[in-house]
Amino acid sequence: MEHSPIITLTSDFGYRDPFVGIMKGVILSINPFANIIDIAHGISHQNIMEAAFAIETSFASFPHKTIHVVVVDPGVGSVRRPILVAMDYHYFIGPDNGVFSRIYNSRHESLSVIHITAGHYFLPGRSSTFHGRDVFAPVAAWLSKGINVMNFGNPITDYVNIRLPVPVMSKENTIEGEVIYVDIFGNAITNIQAQKMEELSRGNQEAIPKIMVKGREAPVKKYYSQAGDKSLYSLINSFGYLELFVRNSSASSDFGITVGDKVSVLFT
Amino acid sequence: MEHSPIITLTSDFGYRDPFVGIMKGVILSINPFANIIDIAHGISHQNIMEAAFAIETSFASFPHKTIHVVVVDPGVGSVRRPILVAMDYHYFIGPDNGVFSRIYNSRHESLSVIHITAGHYFLPGRSSTFHGRDVFAPVAAWLSKGINVMNFGNPITDYVNIRLPVPVMSKENTIEGEVIYVDIFGNAITNIQAQKMEELSRGNQEAIPKIMVKGREAPVKKYYSQAGDKSLYSLINSFGYLELFVRNSSASSDFGITVGDKVSVLFT
Amino acid sequence: MEHSPIITLTSDFGYRDPFVGIMKGVILSINPFANIIDIAHGISHQNIMEAAFAIETSFASFPHKTIHVVVVDPGVGSVRRPILVAMDYHYFIGPDNGVFSRIYNSRHESLSVIHITAGHYFLPGRSSTFHGRDVFAPVAAWLSKGINVMNFGNPITDYVNIRLPVPVMSKENTIEGEVIYVDIFGNAITNIQAQKMEELSRGNQEAIPKIMVKGREAPVKKYYSQAGDKSLYSLINSFGYLELFVRNSSASSDFGITVGDKVSVLFT
Repeated sequence: MEHSPIITLTSDFGYRDPFVGIMKGVILSINPFANIIDIAHGISHQNIMEAAFAIETSFASFPHKTIHVVVVDPGVGSVRRPILVAMDYHYFIGPDNGVFSRIYNSRHESLSVIHITAGHYFLPGRSSTFHGRDVFAPVAAWLSKGINVMNFGNPITDYVNIRLPVPVMSKENTIEGEVIYVDIFGNAITNIQAQKMEELSRGNQEAIPKIMVKGREAPVKKYYSQAGDKSLYSLINSFGYLELFVRNSSASSDFGITVGDKVSVLFT
Repeated sequence: MEHSPIITLTSDFGYRDPFVGIMKGVILSINPFANIIDIAHGISHQNIMEAAFAIETSFASFPHKTIHVVVVDPGVGSVRRPILVAMDYHYFIGPDNGVFSRIYNSRHESLSVIHITAGHYFLPGRSSTFHGRDVFAPVAAWLSKGINVMNFGNPITDYVNIRLPVPVMSKENTIEGEVIYVDIFGNAITNIQAQKMEELSRGNQEAIPKIMVKGREAPVKKYYSQAGDKSLYSLINSFGYLELFVRNSSASSDFGITVGDKVSVLFT
Repeated sequence: MEHSPIITLTSDFGYRDPFVGIMKGVILSINPFANIIDIAHGISHQNIMEAAFAIETSFASFPHKTIHVVVVDPGVGSVRRPILVAMDYHYFIGPDNGVFSRIYNSRHESLSVIHITAGHYFLPGRSSTFHGRDVFAPVAAWLSKGINVMNFGNPITDYVNIRLPVPVMSKENTIEGEVIYVDIFGNAITNIQAQKMEELSRGNQEAIPKIMVKGREAPVKKYYSQAGDKSLYSLINSFGYLELFVRNSSASSDFGITVGDKVSVLFT
């Protein structure tokens, strides 16, 4: 017995308006057997990079063949294209505005990006302001019914791929990275991977790195409750990245740390 | 193979308290095969007209026979009646406080409103403060199991039907309408339909209407990103209504536009 | 035909980050037939007692064998244990930090608490910061597939059981209780049960209790809209507890009532 096809939804539509509900209705009208799963709809308004982070960190937890719809779409109605991304065993549907940049840059074996043009899969009378309802939801529903990816349009290679900040080795013993995401707890996630730090320590497992942000040191801990109160600390988080935090409080509020802040890791 | 019966939920219960979860549990205890779909639970507290807008704009996207439960219910426990509305191929369950006024006033072929009185379908020991749990959820669950609408009570005709603001033709070439909803992006949706504007232009497709609100002009665009920054613009939105917006910002915050503000459309 | 196994999720992860979506993906990857139901993810950050209230008030509405995952987990990664609670016909999975104290103290016939140690049911490479993903979600998914409770670890009796405030009979005719939860409407729920008040009135159904909080009287009503505006009132809520409210407003904001405030019930 096969399970229902899974369609996930991620958007900046929030939880007061009917937009998310409408997309669910459209999907179920086309494929009433779809299993619709909310990832998050509280993405900051039109914050493409926040949505990019949300889908990058969650897609791989889902079963193969899951269809991920992401609608953060300030350019809706303009020339920006609707796309369908097939990466390894996952599908992604949304606007070609860079929201899938972190998917393109993740490790993968196969990747194809389709410019969705097959208008007979859209809702009739497509609007210029709500492609979540008129394009992305119906395409996801038809895909979940087994329509072949290639039926939705032709492959493109000039899709929007936002350049992600990459940590640099500024000196022999130093990595310079930056904060790429602040979560709801105020934890500030950097782009510095644990693996990178291990390489830098040259296998010396007792080497303790010095983490600096905004002229302040953030001593490394293993888990949140290991830290003292009120000070800034860091740890390797569950995604394998260096993260700044304040125990039972917010690194973002308490120390004004935001996306783009430089963070350095120094081994002495 | 038939799909699971769909029950949608819309409320002002928010996302911190257990009220929505409790309703889901009640439904699944009666019909564990129900497919429960959240529309929105962030409706402003006790804002009946906001809920009326949410359900009007979303119900038709769902498959026939979907059951829509709406709980925004300041009069819970008083003499206000619980009702079940059967309109064409959809069902609506909630308090008789006008929350379905936009449903009554939508185009339809059949409409019947039942005063729910069949107490054996309620939870035992019904409270005076949580009919979402004790009345609406169980009635929805029983209806989803195939119980006939007529078994829940008798038809009524004196249900609460809140008079909706209707645009008027103030002069030969002018429509006067108003803002009826402000969404989470700060876009202000009016009650002026595109169709009405087309009629006024008398088929002259090149006629450009002048949109005025609060003494300010809001030039018409086709989609959001076509507008310049920081100024007020308008467009025909995805529901076919005239909408005021500020690109990448909020018409509501930037220009203080709120529900009830007058908007005029003038053809010269 | 059997229905899908139900897994509920309750957390303080909010609605902007991908954490809830990730947990759903992990569950569906192990058991794609699970029916995942969101209870609430807007629990105040690291507020164990708020989560304890949410799960206590909602679990019993769900069908037997439902699995309830609760992740409010400030001690994640430390020595605090992951536990699986089997109480009567329900299962609860989460950290051993007292979040299930209200479950332990609810009326029940059977209760066993398992310290989850069977690491082969965890995700490989378990982190120290996200046991919702690495421990609780996968254990819930495996349990939903029929793995026996006893396979996850051994029973313990020294689980964390937070002492809940209990109302006291301060004089022959007075109960002294306190506010234990403030909901999103600003209603303040106390720990004083209707039943307790009935006992105190000694079956005199016409006896009207005097409710006092912060030196102010809160007259008893039957339902919200029975009260006048702007004043503080009380009623027996849908959970059978005395609750303080302001009609169409917030008892919490209007009168500064918060968790822990003393409330007395006096029969004269």
